[in-house]
Amino acid sequence: MHVKKVKVVTDALNANATIARANRADFDRAGVTVVNLMSAPGSGKTSLLERVLIGLEDVSVGVLEGDVQGSFDADRLARLHVPVTQINTDSGFGGECHLDANMVRSAIPSLPLDDIDLLIIENVGNLVCPAEFRVGEDVRVMVASVTEGEEKPLKYPLMFRTCDLILINKIDLLPHLDFDLDLFLRNLDTVHPGVPHMLASARTGEGVNEWRDWLKHLPSHAAALR
Amino acid sequence: MHVKKVKVVTDALNANATIARANRADFDRAGVTVVNLMSAPGSGKTSLLERVLIGLEDVSVGVLEGDVQGSFDADRLARLHVPVTQINTDSGFGGECHLDANMVRSAIPSLPLDDIDLLIIENVGNLVCPAEFRVGEDVRVMVASVTEGEEKPLKYPLMFRTCDLILINKIDLLPHLDFDLDLFLRNLDTVHPGVPHMLASARTGEGVNEWRDWLKHLPSHAAALR
Repeated sequence: MHVKKVKVVTDALNANATIARANRADFDRAGVTVVNLMSAPGSGKTSLLERVLIGLEDVSVGVLEGDVQGSFDADRLARLHVPVTQINTDSGFGGECHLDANMVRSAIPSLPLDDIDLLIIENVGNLVCPAEFRVGEDVRVMVASVTEGEEKPLKYPLMFRTCDLILINKIDLLPHLDFDLDLFLRNLDTVHPGVPHMLASARTGEGVNEWRDWLKHLPSHAAALR
Repeated sequence: MHVKKVKVVTDALNANATIARANRADFDRAGVTVVNLMSAPGSGKTSLLERVLIGLEDVSVGVLEGDVQGSFDADRLARLHVPVTQINTDSGFGGECHLDANMVRSAIPSLPLDDIDLLIIENVGNLVCPAEFRVGEDVRVMVASVTEGEEKPLKYPLMFRTCDLILINKIDLLPHLDFDLDLFLRNLDTVHPGVPHMLASARTGEGVNEWRDWLKHLPSHAAALR
């Protein structure tokens, strides 16, 4: 809508891609597989992580937490004795609504890359901009809550299209919602045909074992997903 | 985290404030009160609007819909015989994650300002950037769903702090959640002491009459809220 603005975004995206490649090279050198975990606010990223990290002890995992402000999620995960690094994006007026490659780059010296096999980056809760900024990840996992409605893949197509796995969370609430799961899956298939999905509930634990198995096997086949 | 970037944001916010004042002047000339309606994706903005617009016939209402892509929400509301104008923000790669004053300005010629008393602008679903960009509104209303967790006011303080009314939606789901409403309200009070709130359910209709009354009386006291 505004030529000057679009140009700034393009430049920012070019710079971002360059820095993301540098991050990727550092992760490769350390042999670390990286997951970029994204969702809307309150879809259950942290709750699912709390569940999946218990029982994942045979993989050395680190977490990088991105939030506008505070360390609520980082504090929750640190209780599980997992190394957690926090990035806050409130450098400006209201804060950045996503992680970008440079923010992740600034955190790399604080990450125990030599001691971990798998790094999970929990992005800022947002369905738009996080999808636009690669941070050097191998794969993207998205959490979509059934409370958010069936049309979300059509409204936020880039997010759903760029993810390698969709965790459909809060399915324990299905009996209490008007949510049409078949319609959601059809909408998902429209924007990202064939993308794998898992039904999950951070509350009951359903689907958590399945996601844990996927994460355990990820380092051996992440290259194929890139 | 990046000096150049912060400067761009600052310039963008200055330009935005200038254009927001121009929008405000146009709305004032036409005698239109403007609500900026914001929330995370899937919190229920459109569903609550569908409910509240029925029975609001004695106020002439128009709706401006902001979405990254598509016109799902606009189509839903147009069925209620309310004039609806759509803005799509997907001018760039993945789309803008918020409305800004210039996008609203570009829609003004399409708005029936002489025929309406109240304009409701449904912003892009996002808890960060929409709060940073004034668009010329009188008041800001935020929808927060109880499915999103109690800590959201602390994680997204600018959004909760700049709103004049918080609609706490999906309260029909409270018996099925571990959500602690008292804790949420304490967190809300921490970031925005004394802000009015209403408990609502777009599904059962609870709280909708109360919000409709608030909207009916808004034109007469909007100036006091500015």
